[in-house]
Amino acid sequence: MKISTIKQLLVKIFIKHKLSKAHAIISADALINAELVGAYGHGLSRLKMYCERISKKLINPKPKIKIKKISQSVSHIDANNSIGFVAADLGIKTAIKLAQKTGIGMVAIKGSGHYGLSGYYAEQAVKKNLITMIYTNAPPAVAPHGSLKSLFGTNPICFGTPTGTKIPFILDTSISMINRGKIRVAARNNKKIPEGVALDSFGKPTIDAKKALEGVQLPIASFRGSGLAWMVDILSGVITGGNHAGRVKDPFDDFSGPQNIGHLFITFKANLFQKNYNQRIKDNIRTIKKLPKIKGVKEIMYPGQNKYYRYKKNLKREISISNIIKKDLETLIS
Amino acid sequence: MKISTIKQLLVKIFIKHKLSKAHAIISADALINAELVGAYGHGLSRLKMYCERISKKLINPKPKIKIKKISQSVSHIDANNSIGFVAADLGIKTAIKLAQKTGIGMVAIKGSGHYGLSGYYAEQAVKKNLITMIYTNAPPAVAPHGSLKSLFGTNPICFGTPTGTKIPFILDTSISMINRGKIRVAARNNKKIPEGVALDSFGKPTIDAKKALEGVQLPIASFRGSGLAWMVDILSGVITGGNHAGRVKDPFDDFSGPQNIGHLFITFKANLFQKNYNQRIKDNIRTIKKLPKIKGVKEIMYPGQNKYYRYKKNLKREISISNIIKKDLETLIS
Repeated sequence: MKISTIKQLLVKIFIKHKLSKAHAIISADALINAELVGAYGHGLSRLKMYCERISKKLINPKPKIKIKKISQSVSHIDANNSIGFVAADLGIKTAIKLAQKTGIGMVAIKGSGHYGLSGYYAEQAVKKNLITMIYTNAPPAVAPHGSLKSLFGTNPICFGTPTGTKIPFILDTSISMINRGKIRVAARNNKKIPEGVALDSFGKPTIDAKKALEGVQLPIASFRGSGLAWMVDILSGVITGGNHAGRVKDPFDDFSGPQNIGHLFITFKANLFQKNYNQRIKDNIRTIKKLPKIKGVKEIMYPGQNKYYRYKKNLKREISISNIIKKDLETLIS
Repeated sequence: MKISTIKQLLVKIFIKHKLSKAHAIISADALINAELVGAYGHGLSRLKMYCERISKKLINPKPKIKIKKISQSVSHIDANNSIGFVAADLGIKTAIKLAQKTGIGMVAIKGSGHYGLSGYYAEQAVKKNLITMIYTNAPPAVAPHGSLKSLFGTNPICFGTPTGTKIPFILDTSISMINRGKIRVAARNNKKIPEGVALDSFGKPTIDAKKALEGVQLPIASFRGSGLAWMVDILSGVITGGNHAGRVKDPFDDFSGPQNIGHLFITFKANLFQKNYNQRIKDNIRTIKKLPKIKGVKEIMYPGQNKYYRYKKNLKREISISNIIKKDLETLIS
């Protein structure tokens, strides 16, 4: 299906679900971007869920979003259970303005929901020659170090910087070893999962996908990743007023209340301290790319480079729609 | 040896090496703190190196440190090749003042050197009820993903927050899988090293400690950790004006110039957005500690908790001095 056709369709669906036209466009753009960068888990496969949560009044289609200025460089947003895309869009735009005015910006959001890819918002700041750090929490997926139960979300750490070239440096990394979807696929196909990514229900390491599904997923790098996940939970949940400590609801199967996810956006001018920042970052990347490579490695890639190539390639194509999603679209529009 | 005796001795040694009394005290305190928290690699074992670099004029004992105000919340420091402790002490104190005045503070430093433990500076901010994020780069130790050569330092990620109790939450985590010292010990004792921590000189994974020493160490979590290390290099080196892209010199064996390490200190009031932050973080930690535990785990610890206990215990004891360090102290004082 053509990108423009899908966009029209998505906007219609969101408007039908009571979103304003502006909010429908923001949400459609975010979903399409996820498809284009190949992050299908954050794309159209979530549309039905969003609409369901709107219908069940867990996402507020007409939120009264409050922005509170805390200081010259700092603002707080209560998103009033808006769809996450809208809250995050306002968050990054506010953080960009603050940084442009005062050199640095910090925006905390509460009362939001799943907003898709952190990197999508980071790109917006980077296009304005800002460096950005973005944090969000998520429903329980990973066990804290020493624990037998999932509590932390995949809590991504996101960092973006201009590179002096068209392709931004966007690190957007989950702190879980492996995607839950991958474990599900392995279980279905009776395949093993790698060592060190999950524990069984007794807390023992397992490579049996089925046992892993009954147990817990592990964070990257053991206690280190557990600490990083905890940090993200504090930065996005505890300080903002959002849910935290495992209380963010799974959007797909917990309809007992709004998610109340928190986000934190930090932005600052890339050339805040060194006027020739672009030259410096170019030199940095060039130096690293020139290192001797492991056999089979053609190029040392910086974070975000591959995603950019995928995006550019997919932008010229149609988006392929699975039968399940086709059915979703038909049901939701009718 | 009594802590107070060691402190006197260290201050004398630093003054003998031309540091001002104030700077000597700052440096002595940082080294002693490292011993007390059990981070011996950052403690007295480095004293001789610092003195050698001062004697060789690679550390400036009488630096003319310049602080430049960039905006209401942001400052830049050119540490003029001061000993790292002095630059970092000024950096965190400046960041604390900025945050107390404007809610948020950001201080970038260039022209510094190895400053010991990031967590030591984080604690100072946390004591003032601030949240802090601290970044520094370091000499090459870890290979970028896909590369055959070390370039990133162990580039720690540090995050600190008040907890509403006496024991601060201080995450201070290196992005390398394993300490190089541990590989050296294994090689000496003909022991194997864990899988996935190092490559041999051909870029193949190895558990042979000797081959690992000839090869490279790996970052945590593969490309994810490599990205995090790269982020830290940008945040502490590229934006600040410090060295980056593998140009930070090893303080122990590269006397061809000053290190010119960069640091970045971000601070903000913990209750910037939620007045009851202390209550919220207490609830967060309490909830996580209550999770069911893996067999053998008595308590789910938050980052910094163990270090705090060690510190408190060691504070009541004398510091044990190895013969090598005893000799260092005798040589340096004479």
